[in-house]
Amino acid sequence: MSSTFGHLFRIHTWGESHGGAVGVVIDGCPPRIELSAADLQVELDRRRPGQSKLTTPRQEADRAEILSGVFEGQTLGTPILVMVRNEDARPEAYADMRDVYRPSHADYTYEAKYGIRNWQGGGRASARETIGRVAAGAVARKVLAKFGAGEVVGFVSQVHTIESKVDPFAVTRADVERSITRCPDPVAAEEMTRRIDDARRAGDSLGGVVTCVAHGVPPGLGEPVFHKLEADLAASLLSLPACKGFEIGSGFAATRLLGSGHNDAFVVEGGRVHTRTNHSGGVQGGISNGEPILVRAAFKPTATIRKEQDTVNREGEAVKLEAQGRHDPCVLPRAVPMVEAMVALVLCDHLLRQRAIAS
Amino acid sequence: MSSTFGHLFRIHTWGESHGGAVGVVIDGCPPRIELSAADLQVELDRRRPGQSKLTTPRQEADRAEILSGVFEGQTLGTPILVMVRNEDARPEAYADMRDVYRPSHADYTYEAKYGIRNWQGGGRASARETIGRVAAGAVARKVLAKFGAGEVVGFVSQVHTIESKVDPFAVTRADVERSITRCPDPVAAEEMTRRIDDARRAGDSLGGVVTCVAHGVPPGLGEPVFHKLEADLAASLLSLPACKGFEIGSGFAATRLLGSGHNDAFVVEGGRVHTRTNHSGGVQGGISNGEPILVRAAFKPTATIRKEQDTVNREGEAVKLEAQGRHDPCVLPRAVPMVEAMVALVLCDHLLRQRAIAS
Amino acid sequence: MSSTFGHLFRIHTWGESHGGAVGVVIDGCPPRIELSAADLQVELDRRRPGQSKLTTPRQEADRAEILSGVFEGQTLGTPILVMVRNEDARPEAYADMRDVYRPSHADYTYEAKYGIRNWQGGGRASARETIGRVAAGAVARKVLAKFGAGEVVGFVSQVHTIESKVDPFAVTRADVERSITRCPDPVAAEEMTRRIDDARRAGDSLGGVVTCVAHGVPPGLGEPVFHKLEADLAASLLSLPACKGFEIGSGFAATRLLGSGHNDAFVVEGGRVHTRTNHSGGVQGGISNGEPILVRAAFKPTATIRKEQDTVNREGEAVKLEAQGRHDPCVLPRAVPMVEAMVALVLCDHLLRQRAIAS
Amino acid sequence: MSSTFGHLFRIHTWGESHGGAVGVVIDGCPPRIELSAADLQVELDRRRPGQSKLTTPRQEADRAEILSGVFEGQTLGTPILVMVRNEDARPEAYADMRDVYRPSHADYTYEAKYGIRNWQGGGRASARETIGRVAAGAVARKVLAKFGAGEVVGFVSQVHTIESKVDPFAVTRADVERSITRCPDPVAAEEMTRRIDDARRAGDSLGGVVTCVAHGVPPGLGEPVFHKLEADLAASLLSLPACKGFEIGSGFAATRLLGSGHNDAFVVEGGRVHTRTNHSGGVQGGISNGEPILVRAAFKPTATIRKEQDTVNREGEAVKLEAQGRHDPCVLPRAVPMVEAMVALVLCDHLLRQRAIAS
Repeated sequence: MSSTFGHLFRIHTWGESHGGAVGVVIDGCPPRIELSAADLQVELDRRRPGQSKLTTPRQEADRAEILSGVFEGQTLGTPILVMVRNEDARPEAYADMRDVYRPSHADYTYEAKYGIRNWQGGGRASARETIGRVAAGAVARKVLAKFGAGEVVGFVSQVHTIESKVDPFAVTRADVERSITRCPDPVAAEEMTRRIDDARRAGDSLGGVVTCVAHGVPPGLGEPVFHKLEADLAASLLSLPACKGFEIGSGFAATRLLGSGHNDAFVVEGGRVHTRTNHSGGVQGGISNGEPILVRAAFKPTATIRKEQDTVNREGEAVKLEAQGRHDPCVLPRAVPMVEAMVALVLCDHLLRQRAIAS
Repeated sequence: MSSTFGHLFRIHTWGESHGGAVGVVIDGCPPRIELSAADLQVELDRRRPGQSKLTTPRQEADRAEILSGVFEGQTLGTPILVMVRNEDARPEAYADMRDVYRPSHADYTYEAKYGIRNWQGGGRASARETIGRVAAGAVARKVLAKFGAGEVVGFVSQVHTIESKVDPFAVTRADVERSITRCPDPVAAEEMTRRIDDARRAGDSLGGVVTCVAHGVPPGLGEPVFHKLEADLAASLLSLPACKGFEIGSGFAATRLLGSGHNDAFVVEGGRVHTRTNHSGGVQGGISNGEPILVRAAFKPTATIRKEQDTVNREGEAVKLEAQGRHDPCVLPRAVPMVEAMVALVLCDHLLRQRAIAS
Repeated sequence: MSSTFGHLFRIHTWGESHGGAVGVVIDGCPPRIELSAADLQVELDRRRPGQSKLTTPRQEADRAEILSGVFEGQTLGTPILVMVRNEDARPEAYADMRDVYRPSHADYTYEAKYGIRNWQGGGRASARETIGRVAAGAVARKVLAKFGAGEVVGFVSQVHTIESKVDPFAVTRADVERSITRCPDPVAAEEMTRRIDDARRAGDSLGGVVTCVAHGVPPGLGEPVFHKLEADLAASLLSLPACKGFEIGSGFAATRLLGSGHNDAFVVEGGRVHTRTNHSGGVQGGISNGEPILVRAAFKPTATIRKEQDTVNREGEAVKLEAQGRHDPCVLPRAVPMVEAMVALVLCDHLLRQRAIAS
Repeated sequence: MSSTFGHLFRIHTWGESHGGAVGVVIDGCPPRIELSAADLQVELDRRRPGQSKLTTPRQEADRAEILSGVFEGQTLGTPILVMVRNEDARPEAYADMRDVYRPSHADYTYEAKYGIRNWQGGGRASARETIGRVAAGAVARKVLAKFGAGEVVGFVSQVHTIESKVDPFAVTRADVERSITRCPDPVAAEEMTRRIDDARRAGDSLGGVVTCVAHGVPPGLGEPVFHKLEADLAASLLSLPACKGFEIGSGFAATRLLGSGHNDAFVVEGGRVHTRTNHSGGVQGGISNGEPILVRAAFKPTATIRKEQDTVNREGEAVKLEAQGRHDPCVLPRAVPMVEAMVALVLCDHLLRQRAIAS
């Protein structure tokens, strides 16, 4: 259960950062979707390390291999296995961490849970685990496209205290890819670049917010109770490393409005029902209403820093730790394809679920 | 799937607000837990309408009946069926809404999904659906207590712009129950009472935030990837009616800190590993670390207001709506037992999962 | 998990034979299926005790109440709760069994698993648990009918050593209901009646076989691997009380044929692909091929008999047991609606799953 | 869902016979179980083709590679990915089958379901899919051994009309491995060898029965209703290619006994409760009673034969087919490790489930 996500469009990720490989099984994909490794690679390249000076220098080509479920360029309806070999693993760099718990990492909790951990890198807690998600998200996007059920655009809307000033519903993928920060506001993007670079040089790290919009989602996707669209979206994003918060539509800001100011009036435009405002973020009662879906995910500053920190070792002794390893001073730019993938996976799953019961 | 929550400790809620009854099947509860209807009633009474001037005047005793799974005062290990009859249903009060979509309600989206809805009240989208959750949460609390695995205390930390000033880790249930607002800060509580009362008289509504702390959760509960403790907690709270946002630990505030200021240093105190700060909110890498778990849930202002609103009807014509029905001007006080129940359910499920694999 | 069956069309049964009530939550039913309590009652009346001299004299009207999920005669798409109160419970009749394990009953194993059991009747192991299945099966039949996806006819094909001589594909429901044995072969039926009556008078019991055919199932339902149609059918029938064996198509007889004699040649008839023989029982590679699906389920003789038996009590002492209680000398006639219900549930679930991915 | 088996100890198989590779993700395995690729290889070697003159001449070393979830010789508690490359694939041998439906194969039904199939071999319907199951079963056996919860021994008890004469509860693995037929009765084994060889030369095929016994399973494993141990065992075996029937304990033979002759009297021996006979096959009311568990699985004759057969092509034209390809004239000897693996997987899953709730 731990490594499974989705009910009908269902993925199972596997792999440690320093094991042989990482990847995913994608089960429940409809047949006859055109698919090639290149389709996955586009998204994996946006996620992979070493793509700019803002990201970890770990050199991983992250070449995806599809080992099942695709035949003559089309999905078979059977499980799709995607594998990416770990190439630039340097376990020796982690030798110091063998017996020491890195603050705000998963070292201590994995030991508490399992009594064992792969100390050569982050194991399952590494961001490399998200390779499988991003690959699966690329497949989900193709399914959504085939059934005309939505297009997902994420972007960095905040890094540390710097906020972008854009209309989230107007942002295009081209806008996002223009900057290595993946912030579509050029002024903020430049400032973010500097701030991240400063943090990197200082051996420190930064957090921020990814905003993600799904356009063209038909009304009726979602469920009334435990699998409300926002509940599944929240679970999907909080399952990403370093994510600490989630909002749909107005989010926490909703708490400071009156009901009369928050309610989204219904209007008819272009022959179909719309809402005048979109505080709901495209979802009402757990079900999509046809407006763009907007979610926001908060990411904490990367736990790995190059400054000396207080911690303890496995013997319960106080020790000082100065992490070496390679890491991103700010995960936000690389988090964008991860967030998009998770949103696409949720939508795709709910699309199939709705197809099952629709008349 | 829609109405099922949990993997080992698993609940299935059922019922519409104006159908015959609402309730829950609780499956996977360990045997030989002492349980009576009175245990459930304590929590249901905190949730039920009509308990104070701040809540809807709908008169529902919400008497829980246990129809299976308990024998001679103990759980059998078999499914526990809890039923509460709907008594004070007034479907005629909703006749006006038969063909009109209430803004920011689920009327339109249910029709889009199902092509039919029970217009006599909110159907499944009604807060009455949470009766089953609160009853199940009371059972989960007993399981947690039996295995010494945690105690859950939630409280109202914000209503509209009024914020409580308390140490969340020091709040007790007695502190919470002292005020009809369920805010443990007496000064803020009084202000909240006035503000809610003002909103009620103005026919308007308010939102706010519930903070919830789980004390005494052992290290090692949770999962590394999709069922990270925070992911399941987020899903559980976003599945509550009107919930728009979720935070664990430092949440969105984390995004404005440096890594060096956010990391929780490990220390040894009282013979076991602790963290000096708790920005992590008791969870690292998806797994509990033994510190108190802290989550926050944002609730929007109640969608039902007594002011005239623009909307459309099923024929796609613009109409004015002035809702009558009975409603809470602010759901926050009643949301506390709901939030606690969801947190208890998540912890109980993960407790059982951990027992399965622990040596 | 224990009490949940199905993936999209999903049921959760609950209730002990001597608790307050038994029933089922049916989740995932498509909306706008016409449904009333009377639809369920037809099937429940075929299942209930006391319907003929061949069945237990326990008097239970088994009146089904629908408490949610149906509105103005149609399903809402939300969970349907069906409840049947236990009326003719006589716990005192079981007082002797409080500390004694009835041979080939679940008394001992429930104690081994849970450390507690409801000794007033069979608890969850009672055939009363199947009330929920039969009610849910009636709903599944309506869904299948709406989507033109199959009609299920079961019958008693063997009691003890008496076998019916009929073409299973030609049997109609009317043929089945003609006899209290539910055997459509009048000669065998009469002999079965006598044999069952003899067993009853001797305080002994008989087993037998139910054969079940699903007509009109479209090609393409099922899954290639773990949820092969025959795997789900086998699980569904082996989950019935007293079921010891399962066959699809040629079953165990297949083992004595050569491949050249067993293979079903494909032919084109009436413009579509058929098979000349149907050793496959309508399923190839886990997926329906459009031919009638045929399964057989073996039921052991009822464990409760009125003869003295050797057993042990909770203290591990050898004791003699002469059960009183009320029981069926042969469960076969009442097993027919149970088998049909399980087959309908499996088909309905796979129908919805196929709708999700079909282009 | 299609390719997932198990609830806590959960496997996901993937791969086509002529895609790049086949394998499995094993999720939910407890941590700190000693595990190496060699542990898997022992079982894979019993399953692989080309191991004797009775099996297909396809040359596959079936070398298992573990790519995640194991560290320094121990399981991590995280998903274990096992991959086996397809080496001796000869897609050209299947060119004739591109447009022709092989009788009693899955060609037609896959097309009906998906509108596409990998015609280069059997795709997912190939017995190569069971590589993942057998590898996972080897892991399950290690978990069972660690927790002292059972040892699984399967054997061929029938081929065509030849039945072995052995006490199933006394058969050891050494007895089974003594003959290439995996029949522990030397006389029957020799006859089976001849009969299979005759069928091979005649271009025909044979079916048979595998009997499997689980020794040392503690009382209390299983569930009362839908996941009765026998229901999960039935599903697990009917999910194997070519399986047509299932029995637990007395199976279909139970139907010809009286209750007084079938009931298993309880006795106390060696300080614990036993049954005098074991018609129940080690399971009562869905839950293990501590006696050896006995199941039987019927396998039809291999569908691929070298004789000319009537069939149709994709255009619906009648054609003659004489299959070339490589195949087993009788799957029974290779089915033994598959059956054992499935039984071990079911027991391991239920073992973990019971650990979750036991006090």
